[in-house]
Amino acid sequence: MRVEVFFTPHQVEELYFREKRVVVVDVLRASTTIATALYNGAKEIIPVATVESAMKIVGNLDGDVTLLGGERDGKMIEGFHLGNSPLEYVEERVRGKSIVLTTSNGSQAILKARHAREMSVLGFVNISVIESVVREGEGDLVILCAGHDGFFSMEDAVCAGMLIHRLVDGSKAEMELGDAGIASVALYKNQGKSILKMLRNSEHGKYLDEIGFRNDLEACAAADAMPVVPQFLGNVVKLKKDSESIKISIPT
Amino acid sequence: MRVEVFFTPHQVEELYFREKRVVVVDVLRASTTIATALYNGAKEIIPVATVESAMKIVGNLDGDVTLLGGERDGKMIEGFHLGNSPLEYVEERVRGKSIVLTTSNGSQAILKARHAREMSVLGFVNISVIESVVREGEGDLVILCAGHDGFFSMEDAVCAGMLIHRLVDGSKAEMELGDAGIASVALYKNQGKSILKMLRNSEHGKYLDEIGFRNDLEACAAADAMPVVPQFLGNVVKLKKDSESIKISIPT
Repeated sequence: MRVEVFFTPHQVEELYFREKRVVVVDVLRASTTIATALYNGAKEIIPVATVESAMKIVGNLDGDVTLLGGERDGKMIEGFHLGNSPLEYVEERVRGKSIVLTTSNGSQAILKARHAREMSVLGFVNISVIESVVREGEGDLVILCAGHDGFFSMEDAVCAGMLIHRLVDGSKAEMELGDAGIASVALYKNQGKSILKMLRNSEHGKYLDEIGFRNDLEACAAADAMPVVPQFLGNVVKLKKDSESIKISIPT
Repeated sequence: MRVEVFFTPHQVEELYFREKRVVVVDVLRASTTIATALYNGAKEIIPVATVESAMKIVGNLDGDVTLLGGERDGKMIEGFHLGNSPLEYVEERVRGKSIVLTTSNGSQAILKARHAREMSVLGFVNISVIESVVREGEGDLVILCAGHDGFFSMEDAVCAGMLIHRLVDGSKAEMELGDAGIASVALYKNQGKSILKMLRNSEHGKYLDEIGFRNDLEACAAADAMPVVPQFLGNVVKLKKDSESIKISIPT
């Protein structure tokens, strides 16, 4: 099995993802927010590229069951119901709702890989269930880090590295890695001892702290706190069918 | 002092480099080839983007003192005098010559950063002299890795990390690093114990080995074997003036 890692979606063309098995990572914060929303009963997440598209789509949908969520520069967008803080996506707000989500990096990464054969969304909050799904699936794997505005993000690389490290550890099959995959594992080993500390030291983590989202970092660091498999299919992200029955052994 | 690292030139706009102090890294092989050519007495290197431009430029220059060098897919270009193997750039061939160089990644990275206030070219072969020059200069630093076709290359990141590690080690001033800078240092620590081994395990190193350039990897791994400072100024890369007088302590 070959595992390819991209540190940003800007590097690669949309059609590259056709027929690929893809895991999209945006630890701070879209992956965490999506997993949290679905864990708390949201019906689906509809990722869109622009604020204008989000407004347009929500205008065509039933207002009672649809919410607008997302951020620009980390902050809530005017007229939206929700920002991009996972802590906002509590059960009382999201249960049964469709959430149109536009974020600066995560939504864009998901849309870039939309031609994938299979796509799931990974954060530290659901790493063990994603590991199980990847292990049970077939074919080569592409891990697409959302990064930040086209640049490398430590937290996404470390999360990718953690997933690969676990896959390698438990796999009998040979795992073939390119430079970015080897680098991700090395970065996980170097930076992954304390996920929370790594997030606090990361560029985007520092920025989120500055603009008042310090508590988000704890939510995003909480390994396996939201053990669901968000799967992109037919333009929406939903819980993967039968994924509740996946047996996972969550490390303590 | 802030040190910014880019893993590929594709991430960033040309105008970003205006007024910046830049070090361009393409270990395999343009950096190594350029340092080798200048060390062996080449007058200058003229980096150009395309084979067609190279042909055109060389047509306007004195054929006796101009050579065409470069590669596509790692291989020599038809009608060119030299490929991109540093081992070809021996004194007998290059002394006194202007070399028009077009390579897939290194030449492109240099051209991308051409608006820089200062730009030098780094490989393992000249890391100590570049370290000295950077230390003596002023202002923030940008390290631009050539990468490979827009993708992350381990060898460039490790070389960037080695330079930063040394700068941090010997510096009294605070060094401010972003995610990519921290990652580079971590990768240097993880992968830099044997530079040659790291090159042999890298994606592009393996490819070069396959197409018959195994010996190039040794040349590219030879720390401080070509202790010169290639500086881009007025569209050509030349030895930095007075750089011969820079005192360096080469680690044994």
